[in-house]
Amino acid sequence: MTEKIGVIGGGSWGTALAILLSEKGYQVEMWLRDKLQVEEIENSRENKKYLPNVKLPSNLKVTNDLEKVSFNKDVILLSVPTHGVRETLYNCKRYINKDQIIVNVAKGIENDSLLRISEIVKEILPQNKYSILSGPSHAEEVAKNMPTTVVSASEDKTVAEFVQDLFITPFFRVYTNPDVVGVELGGSLKNVIALGAGISDGLECGDNTKAALMTRGIIEMARLGEKMGANTSTFAGLSGIGDLIVTCTSMHSRNRRAGILIGEGKTLEQSIKTVGMVVEGIKTTKSAYELAEKYGVIMPITKEIYGVLYEGKDVKNSVINLMLRDRKHEMEDVIIDKNISW
Amino acid sequence: MTEKIGVIGGGSWGTALAILLSEKGYQVEMWLRDKLQVEEIENSRENKKYLPNVKLPSNLKVTNDLEKVSFNKDVILLSVPTHGVRETLYNCKRYINKDQIIVNVAKGIENDSLLRISEIVKEILPQNKYSILSGPSHAEEVAKNMPTTVVSASEDKTVAEFVQDLFITPFFRVYTNPDVVGVELGGSLKNVIALGAGISDGLECGDNTKAALMTRGIIEMARLGEKMGANTSTFAGLSGIGDLIVTCTSMHSRNRRAGILIGEGKTLEQSIKTVGMVVEGIKTTKSAYELAEKYGVIMPITKEIYGVLYEGKDVKNSVINLMLRDRKHEMEDVIIDKNISW
Repeated sequence: MTEKIGVIGGGSWGTALAILLSEKGYQVEMWLRDKLQVEEIENSRENKKYLPNVKLPSNLKVTNDLEKVSFNKDVILLSVPTHGVRETLYNCKRYINKDQIIVNVAKGIENDSLLRISEIVKEILPQNKYSILSGPSHAEEVAKNMPTTVVSASEDKTVAEFVQDLFITPFFRVYTNPDVVGVELGGSLKNVIALGAGISDGLECGDNTKAALMTRGIIEMARLGEKMGANTSTFAGLSGIGDLIVTCTSMHSRNRRAGILIGEGKTLEQSIKTVGMVVEGIKTTKSAYELAEKYGVIMPITKEIYGVLYEGKDVKNSVINLMLRDRKHEMEDVIIDKNISW
Repeated sequence: MTEKIGVIGGGSWGTALAILLSEKGYQVEMWLRDKLQVEEIENSRENKKYLPNVKLPSNLKVTNDLEKVSFNKDVILLSVPTHGVRETLYNCKRYINKDQIIVNVAKGIENDSLLRISEIVKEILPQNKYSILSGPSHAEEVAKNMPTTVVSASEDKTVAEFVQDLFITPFFRVYTNPDVVGVELGGSLKNVIALGAGISDGLECGDNTKAALMTRGIIEMARLGEKMGANTSTFAGLSGIGDLIVTCTSMHSRNRRAGILIGEGKTLEQSIKTVGMVVEGIKTTKSAYELAEKYGVIMPITKEIYGVLYEGKDVKNSVINLMLRDRKHEMEDVIIDKNISW
């Protein structure tokens, strides 16, 4: 059976996945908000703005029409920035029927409502099955068939496995995971830590400092996750530490690049402008900070990044503050096990 | 009280820690096997071979005499390569009394015996208290006071905290952990994965592949650890994933550098020669492979690296083999929790 797939959002990741699915022989149509960009892509058969130097397969259609991308599809792939998910879903809700599977690849937590994407989808399309696809996967590398692994998480095992089969290729390995909360939080919160890792790099703090920041980062992510109903061990997997590693160490990461600029002394506005694409971590930092308050979880790194981004805290001291916080007899508190002690 | 500390081994890490301890005001004496090197260091007040461009403090003594470095010390800091630990301990055993605390910073598993360093120490110095100091800590960065975090693990809480106090500085943060087995295995086995990460880099496989390798790597490390009595959550901490991150991403890492050369097509011998220092991971791969066999643990990455290093397996296919192994409905199996399932 040839699945019909509507890809909503033509950023770098949406485009890379639309290409992957088209090359597998599915009928894929990709929607972009900007009509001029659709025309440009149709003419050049390339998404020059977000995924340059990668040709689109001839069977991949591009459209500006939400009805066309949504109607009569088996799968809707949602790849818009988190802050655009709610509006986009409202706008195409009338064209979507309850049997269509929603696959989300956006990584963030909505500001103010503090909802994860699956919760927004459930609010607007309560009957549709949902899966999140997440993991260490820079679009630029997937487009070049570099070996990549991701996780398909759904409350429904059949859906998780359907999505696994849909995306799997010899170079794109898909695992399943039942923990939607953990996978969604991992993908979102790692962008906050990546901003911190970028700041550390921008300040030229070295590899030891960055590794410490990442390790302590995944621990505070898991701590919040535990309170929100995630399985903490998910944070030790591909969608947690795996995605954190790739985001904190690769120059493909916009969040890290924004952090580097901030660490070098640029303002937030300058940094966002220089990166030139959505830096999800900046909005996610606000949501993560408020979730930590709401659930009463201590998240020192998130708090420090929030201070730098939203309260004008001095960036030069932020990383060092974190490292030197407590100089007492401190035991290492690792993700899960509460029973380790002498 | 001014502690007297004997540092056995003057490689880069031993030297960096000897400097740190001397600067804290302790009476430190560092032993090197090579008499000529001792003279050179005494003349230049610099360990040009292993830690260039870092001046030794005037209170740091250097010696070629095992009796001088061992006798009447409060603490013996053991920083020789794993394959030299047994012989070195035998040679200085007669100068050591049972009240001296042994702090080990070597990261490896003895070939053939498959013993961890603490087990070797227990065999030769059964009455002495022991702590392992481990974590993401490149010597070159510690010597420049870049913020660094490590873990002091001991079966005895008092010893773990004594070592914490001994080493802690405003730039060197020390946590304690009761899990000696987990901390020792983390520091050792990560060198095997780092060889793999280097190979992946040498083959130009990209950041997605390397992040996947590291994530799956820490999971197989924890899997072996669990069978050997470690607390699996230790692998999610500084001495596990933290050290793995720094070793797999930094050019300071000899194991990664050796891996890169192998990935680029150099022979094992050429690669070791080019790195010019002990590459612990090469011997550890053999021990890890045999431990996996002994405990019946599936460790696909370790097995593949073993094949490349010891069985002449084609390196070009090794990473890709790993990524594409199973194309079935595969659930993500993360470190600890066995109860995740639909």
